Amino acid sequence: MKTRAAVAWQAGQPLTIEEVELQGPKAGEVLVEIKATGICHTDYYTLSGADPEGLFPAILGHEGAGVVVEVGAGVKSLQAGDHVIPLYTPECRQCKFCLSQKTNLCQAIRSTQGRGLMPDATSRFSLNGKPILHYMGTSTFSNYIVVPEIALAKIRSDAPFDKVCYIGCGVTTGLGAVLFTAKVEAGANVVVFGLGGIGLNVIQGAKMVGAGKIIGVDINPARQELARQFGMTHFINPNDVENVVDTIIQLTDGGADYSFECIGNTKVMRQALECCHKGWGQSIIIGVAEAGAEISTRPFQLVTGRVWKGSAFGGARGRTDVPKIVDWYMEGKINIDSLITHTLKLEDINEGFRLMKAGESIRSVVVF
Amino acid sequence: MKTRAAVAWQAGQPLTIEEVELQGPKAGEVLVEIKATGICHTDYYTLSGADPEGLFPAILGHEGAGVVVEVGAGVKSLQAGDHVIPLYTPECRQCKFCLSQKTNLCQAIRSTQGRGLMPDATSRFSLNGKPILHYMGTSTFSNYIVVPEIALAKIRSDAPFDKVCYIGCGVTTGLGAVLFTAKVEAGANVVVFGLGGIGLNVIQGAKMVGAGKIIGVDINPARQELARQFGMTHFINPNDVENVVDTIIQLTDGGADYSFECIGNTKVMRQALECCHKGWGQSIIIGVAEAGAEISTRPFQLVTGRVWKGSAFGGARGRTDVPKIVDWYMEGKINIDSLITHTLKLEDINEGFRLMKAGESIRSVVVF
Repeated sequence: MKTRAAVAWQAGQPLTIEEVELQGPKAGEVLVEIKATGICHTDYYTLSGADPEGLFPAILGHEGAGVVVEVGAGVKSLQAGDHVIPLYTPECRQCKFCLSQKTNLCQAIRSTQGRGLMPDATSRFSLNGKPILHYMGTSTFSNYIVVPEIALAKIRSDAPFDKVCYIGCGVTTGLGAVLFTAKVEAGANVVVFGLGGIGLNVIQGAKMVGAGKIIGVDINPARQELARQFGMTHFINPNDVENVVDTIIQLTDGGADYSFECIGNTKVMRQALECCHKGWGQSIIIGVAEAGAEISTRPFQLVTGRVWKGSAFGGARGRTDVPKIVDWYMEGKINIDSLITHTLKLEDINEGFRLMKAGESIRSVVVF
Repeated sequence: MKTRAAVAWQAGQPLTIEEVELQGPKAGEVLVEIKATGICHTDYYTLSGADPEGLFPAILGHEGAGVVVEVGAGVKSLQAGDHVIPLYTPECRQCKFCLSQKTNLCQAIRSTQGRGLMPDATSRFSLNGKPILHYMGTSTFSNYIVVPEIALAKIRSDAPFDKVCYIGCGVTTGLGAVLFTAKVEAGANVVVFGLGGIGLNVIQGAKMVGAGKIIGVDINPARQELARQFGMTHFINPNDVENVVDTIIQLTDGGADYSFECIGNTKVMRQALECCHKGWGQSIIIGVAEAGAEISTRPFQLVTGRVWKGSAFGGARGRTDVPKIVDWYMEGKINIDSLITHTLKLEDINEGFRLMKAGESIRSVVVF
């Protein structure tokens, strides 16, 4: 079949809209009509050429929502008409990682996904007979995609695609880091470094579980207003204080119970650790640092009880937790609408990238 | 009163045996006759002058066992005749740290202890009218000491002092890191870097909780035999393999579930983290690094699920957990006797330091 898609031909170049060829689902695979997709910073990172694992030509996008059109042989958990969110972190429920019950990092299709291919090591996309690669196992910048059954979360059918697509990455990454990775408890003091989309979702996660002080840190004071709407109780602009770490330690009577780095800056990651409370403070790295950058600290920070960890896709098991987060949105427990600042057509997808780069959007969503 | 004690007059000099003056216990304090004390690497570290917080003149020693002689006003939990182990990490059960139930790092007397003083900011030791400082709140190189009630663990009276004194630091530090900090579960693969006294106690802790593979790493092959007696199942000499981290990952089918750094080398701390299993491996730093040294890694190591933490005094709450560990020793669950390689008189304490420096002892114990 044919599908409209935005193709990334090479790093640093605008996407072009093409009618690409899409092969139907093989065994264990599912054809999905994507109804809406967010444009995430990770798409931007890959398109910029800074991602050392970036491959081209590819169809980017990994934050979508849509409807099942057709299922391949052996697919049991889904049928045509089901509403779904594609998962760049699948959940096979059978690999060592899934069975460990200690991580969400299912490895069932890791190696082919990393090479832009389906589990049988081929691509379903092509143009003029030449293959185009998948991206993060999802490629939601295409109107139709084929993905493995294990990479689809089935969600309720009354949820609006142009909002819940954001749960496919950003919402879950921020909210999940609080709920599933850190397991923040009521009353705990939380510090959030970086008040972009991820940071705002960390804030609403912290509010949801009854955190105590929710302190936002950003060099851009314009971020304050929305962050306060989402639950931030205190704001620190690093440019306004002598020492961010000391300021946080004073404000929290000893340090943060939990801190979250939502920027990808290794110097900030160190601050996020060192502002944590002696004895128990945990710092969770969410941001993706530039290739080769390293984090450092004195080991004394850890020996005196601080814990350094990270979170990918919010520690969420996609098929299990993503439907719950959709429910929370539909029940009004979390706010997504205020974070979607722009809605675009596929033809305008490059404008979405421009808005992101200029810091003018929180989330732009493309509606097919 | 007078007491015999080994006095450290300045860094780098041998201790001298003196009859020093000891003031009796004030309110909340207890006079203890020390019956035996281990010589720990931390005493050596301070005496060497490398410890930036080292103060002189002082009476070193922090790994003792003895008997209560007299209690000061208001002391309720102890009486004369009680057998005790002094705690350099006290347990007041009232400060924010104790009440958090998340850490053993009681801060009730932290600031005065760090200055070599009792909680009223004075010393009980003097010679010829000039004060001599306490050390780590314990000073077990003195036959008699005065310590706060909150810094004494009451233990059973049938336990031999010349063995259970080692529980005052080394045993608890290693065993506790496994049991209380990491909470290693049955079947988990454990890697131990450094097979000195701490490492051997980590190994017996891992064996005690039913760990799977227990892999020891040391550049000294002579450490192998005793480590195998304590439960080590595999040995890696870093000089015999191309890459320690890769070797461990292969041996454990993906990496360690838990690793312990028992050396104090920041390069090894990085290896200990990076040999951990993706998704859930935890690395626990026990060793004390040289002043100013820093640990580093790529944040990707944490974002993909590894956890970096540390352990001090094995995460043990002294008054609560130390008596249990004494029971385990008396019940034959753990082996201390094989680790005490030398027993000395106080006059020979400098020989104990020499044996440690030469790597000829695991633990030397001074018996009064």
